[in-house]
Amino acid sequence: MKINNYVDISTIDKEAKKDYIDRHSPFIYCDDKMEKGKKYMVKVQVGKEYSHPDDFDHYIDKVELYDGERLLAEAHVPAGTLGNQSEQLEVYFSVVPKKKMKLSALAYCTKHGVWQSVEKIVEVV
Amino acid sequence: MKINNYVDISTIDKEAKKDYIDRHSPFIYCDDKMEKGKKYMVKVQVGKEYSHPDDFDHYIDKVELYDGERLLAEAHVPAGTLGNQSEQLEVYFSVVPKKKMKLSALAYCTKHGVWQSVEKIVEVV
Amino acid sequence: MKINNYVDISTIDKEAKKDYIDRHSPFIYCDDKMEKGKKYMVKVQVGKEYSHPDDFDHYIDKVELYDGERLLAEAHVPAGTLGNQSEQLEVYFSVVPKKKMKLSALAYCTKHGVWQSVEKIVEVV
Amino acid sequence: MKINNYVDISTIDKEAKKDYIDRHSPFIYCDDKMEKGKKYMVKVQVGKEYSHPDDFDHYIDKVELYDGERLLAEAHVPAGTLGNQSEQLEVYFSVVPKKKMKLSALAYCTKHGVWQSVEKIVEVV
Repeated sequence: MKINNYVDISTIDKEAKKDYIDRHSPFIYCDDKMEKGKKYMVKVQVGKEYSHPDDFDHYIDKVELYDGERLLAEAHVPAGTLGNQSEQLEVYFSVVPKKKMKLSALAYCTKHGVWQSVEKIVEVV
Repeated sequence: MKINNYVDISTIDKEAKKDYIDRHSPFIYCDDKMEKGKKYMVKVQVGKEYSHPDDFDHYIDKVELYDGERLLAEAHVPAGTLGNQSEQLEVYFSVVPKKKMKLSALAYCTKHGVWQSVEKIVEVV
Repeated sequence: MKINNYVDISTIDKEAKKDYIDRHSPFIYCDDKMEKGKKYMVKVQVGKEYSHPDDFDHYIDKVELYDGERLLAEAHVPAGTLGNQSEQLEVYFSVVPKKKMKLSALAYCTKHGVWQSVEKIVEVV
Repeated sequence: MKINNYVDISTIDKEAKKDYIDRHSPFIYCDDKMEKGKKYMVKVQVGKEYSHPDDFDHYIDKVELYDGERLLAEAHVPAGTLGNQSEQLEVYFSVVPKKKMKLSALAYCTKHGVWQSVEKIVEVV
């Protein structure tokens, strides 16, 4: 298998391709700086400007959150949880950092495979 | 295997037992009423007044969210994500309801098994 | 949520009910006696005399194997892996026992919820 | 995050590096040819000549099996299932092929990240 990496869609011309890339890509939202030993929520959202179908034979089945090579958390979401309509899946995970984190997320679409987010650096003081 | 069901800890005398029950039990937080076809976040938190260790050989490994008998989402969280300190694991899942939901959550502790929340009814209009 | 427990289908009259119970129930197959510290394979099979559909909106999404209250392993199997035809899902997990095990398995159907196997005792010498 | 790809260890000089690569890598075992619509077992084994610790803070937490970009099955195995001793994790998944498969497997070590197998082509007639 191979991982599809997010490409900045502002560099893409074709609308259909922008949509295809954006709706499959996970995006990470959290504070840029965190305090060591304090609990924070990190959001993984699939799709930023576009949204993905939630059909039984075509949906976002899971997301994973990594710090470097270490898995922090993963969520499995069966078809139907998003009402079988086009939506952006969102999951928030609690994380207590010890040191600087290099966050990345994966999203898995049952038809179009695994997609990786841009890396997000979190400074930890 | 058997599932441990949450017991209201205000009915329990012994402090150690209150702590034991509370720190293993998942609690569901979300709106009491939702609009059909709209996206909402549902939080599952493990422990309300007490918190659970995040030791490598003793931690909360996963939570599951059900609507009746249907699995809406599950999260797997390896040891260490909560900084190897005592914490309340929190996960938010996005959900788009179609009709009245009967939410319940399970939490799994690697030493003390599976615990079930109180059921939460969500009216959907 | 609640767990459906396997009922011996030889005690059931109606053919449709035998089929319903059997095709959702996990069955555990492994040695009755194991040596401490040696690796064994434990099979979990869903359905013994009947088999379950593998439709996108109706399939066996996961199985879990427990020793008492301890999770030994779980498998998640998306729709389509069994060819979208009626089949008995089978998964083998490797297990190295330390002492007597009380094995039980859960299977989750996306339409009919969670089903529990009969418990299987494994003597460990 | 990045995926470590298996490298043929016969091309590696240092014993420690052979061991490091081999014990983290998943290997796929199954028939080279399968009949369409028939059920087969596919084994994923982590390590072929070497084996991996099953320590609480260092173990193989999951394996995934893909056909091209499509996830066929995944297994999560908590620490302790392999007796907290050095072992090769083995999981067998049932699969019913429809057409030629390009199988690959991932294994996740809680200390050393994600490792990918060599691809295995299965002809389907």
